Amino acid sequence: MQKQIDPWGSDEIKIDEKLLKEFGLKEIPENYLNTDHYLLKRKILLAHRDLDKIAQRIKNKQPFIQLTGIASSGPLHLGHKLDIDIFLMFRELGAISRFVISDIDAFVSRPDDKVPSMKEAKKYAADIVAHLLAFGVKKEEIYVQSQQKPSYFQLAFEASKKITENAFRATYGHVNPGKLSANILQYADILHLQLKENFGPMPSITCIGVEQDPHARICRDISRRLPYGFVQPSFAFFVHQTGLQKDMKMSASIKDSAIFLNDNPSDIKRKINRAFSGGRETIEEHKKLGGIPEVDKAYEILQLHHPDTKLVQETYTRYKSGEMSTGELKKICIEFLTETLSKHQVKVESFREIANEIAYGKK
Amino acid sequence: MQKQIDPWGSDEIKIDEKLLKEFGLKEIPENYLNTDHYLLKRKILLAHRDLDKIAQRIKNKQPFIQLTGIASSGPLHLGHKLDIDIFLMFRELGAISRFVISDIDAFVSRPDDKVPSMKEAKKYAADIVAHLLAFGVKKEEIYVQSQQKPSYFQLAFEASKKITENAFRATYGHVNPGKLSANILQYADILHLQLKENFGPMPSITCIGVEQDPHARICRDISRRLPYGFVQPSFAFFVHQTGLQKDMKMSASIKDSAIFLNDNPSDIKRKINRAFSGGRETIEEHKKLGGIPEVDKAYEILQLHHPDTKLVQETYTRYKSGEMSTGELKKICIEFLTETLSKHQVKVESFREIANEIAYGKK
Repeated sequence: MQKQIDPWGSDEIKIDEKLLKEFGLKEIPENYLNTDHYLLKRKILLAHRDLDKIAQRIKNKQPFIQLTGIASSGPLHLGHKLDIDIFLMFRELGAISRFVISDIDAFVSRPDDKVPSMKEAKKYAADIVAHLLAFGVKKEEIYVQSQQKPSYFQLAFEASKKITENAFRATYGHVNPGKLSANILQYADILHLQLKENFGPMPSITCIGVEQDPHARICRDISRRLPYGFVQPSFAFFVHQTGLQKDMKMSASIKDSAIFLNDNPSDIKRKINRAFSGGRETIEEHKKLGGIPEVDKAYEILQLHHPDTKLVQETYTRYKSGEMSTGELKKICIEFLTETLSKHQVKVESFREIANEIAYGKK
Repeated sequence: MQKQIDPWGSDEIKIDEKLLKEFGLKEIPENYLNTDHYLLKRKILLAHRDLDKIAQRIKNKQPFIQLTGIASSGPLHLGHKLDIDIFLMFRELGAISRFVISDIDAFVSRPDDKVPSMKEAKKYAADIVAHLLAFGVKKEEIYVQSQQKPSYFQLAFEASKKITENAFRATYGHVNPGKLSANILQYADILHLQLKENFGPMPSITCIGVEQDPHARICRDISRRLPYGFVQPSFAFFVHQTGLQKDMKMSASIKDSAIFLNDNPSDIKRKINRAFSGGRETIEEHKKLGGIPEVDKAYEILQLHHPDTKLVQETYTRYKSGEMSTGELKKICIEFLTETLSKHQVKVESFREIANEIAYGKK
């Protein structure tokens, strides 16, 4: 009989556990949020800071706020889809949800060769909004920073008075004016929904990567120093999708490192076929030793994105045992992505007009 | 015959000339702006940086922009009236004029014991707006930062990307986040009127105190780095009214240092009678040596605020010669202020409602 294998208990998760300890975060226990959603089951969303308030609200069917965002510094790739999947999960769990497209943030915090102007940031923003709508985010749930109300901007500036130069430098290592601007906008994003004129003070959840925890801590600190009775925001942390090559981040700036949501079938096929695999040197060796799904990029995509948990688990087991070849695994991945993204892209086009209205304001 | 005396050629102006040289500013020549307004004649507005463009526009009756502002960190005093008088002068000269009440700036750049909250800053803002309206500033010429359009805030943030941490520190000696916020809002105030959606690129004039020239230079630098074709803004510099006591600034935080625009007749009388005077120890000595109008606070008020240049010149001559006693001079000043401010205060009350609408937004 085969050794019991836990596909979610990989070495990578152990690295994250070390990280969690370092940052003082807690793991999200099973069934903590009253759901067995695959994002939790597969430990894609795996850690938190002060999530008890949200868990209680979900249990008691009381309202809470969710704020998630993407900076519009390039086209969306699969890594961004994780943010959106998590957003939709918390919405299902009852969150009053808002999704911010951070266009000002994208421009002020990125170098000019990446985002040369607000015009460029807004073009990306309009594209991202269309994708969000295609994924099922509602139009009233989306806002773009540069189209916000004055009270939002006022809050960003108020936040800037509540952080000292030394505290900022201690956290970020610099006091770069553009990046400082990006930060105070992020604080406003997370906190402004608790303003009386919006939904009033209540628990809120924002999901981010672990490396963004310093932002989270400063934001929680600032929330207490502002005179609006804010409940300290809660945060949950998700794993990052890695790049398609070995030891590489999935990044919009390195073209073949990522599957973009706009990629066509031949792009997908080429990129997955060239992606780093956990297969062995020869077919014989592969059958004998089994593949290594933990480092296989095609497998990672299925693990992070395929909604059918049974299929993902079987794939893991069959690949690990050597029964499934690298070619077969890549084929499953290519078919899954091609079908999912083709359907998605058709929807995206149908939302272009309304997306432009959200990004540029109604004419 | 008496020695020719030039009341505007005082020692204080010489100090300013030294300052001008240090800052690289130019003196405003006589008749430069096609007007013999007392603010220019008396060298109250006395220096400039790049004002030629404005002088040309005035001469050719072409449009130009004026932006002036007051931070709402306390009640208005006579020193602030200078800003308003200068504003009205440039409006008469043909400027498309806007007056900003900097409420966010006031909150983020002042310590909490001075401006503890935006609520407080807005209360001051509403009061200041009522005063502006009473002085004849039109309601459509006034805006409050916290009520501005998104494009204004976007511009402030864009400006933050165009200044480096080192340049900011070199100019201000710090990178205090709240003060940085105040600065980028000031850049947006001065520049946003040149946005296409407002009046489009054209020469603009902003009048400030000489010590604010570092802001002016950074703002001019930033204007060229933004992608909106801005004309570099011009600046003119005015003298500051000094405090009522010796060697003291006129400041909202030191109560008896200033005549506030809300002061009642008994306040005015008390403060002027206690103010530092240029009179001699005894009446005999005063008659023999003459008074020193250059250091006399009652005289300074007439010089800076009394619209009748002939009266001011005669007062100077008679006081200087010893013919006019300190008591007489103070009486002229008290009567002038009492009449001016009483009338003004009645008007202010009639503008309270509309001022609140401007400061808090229409309900």
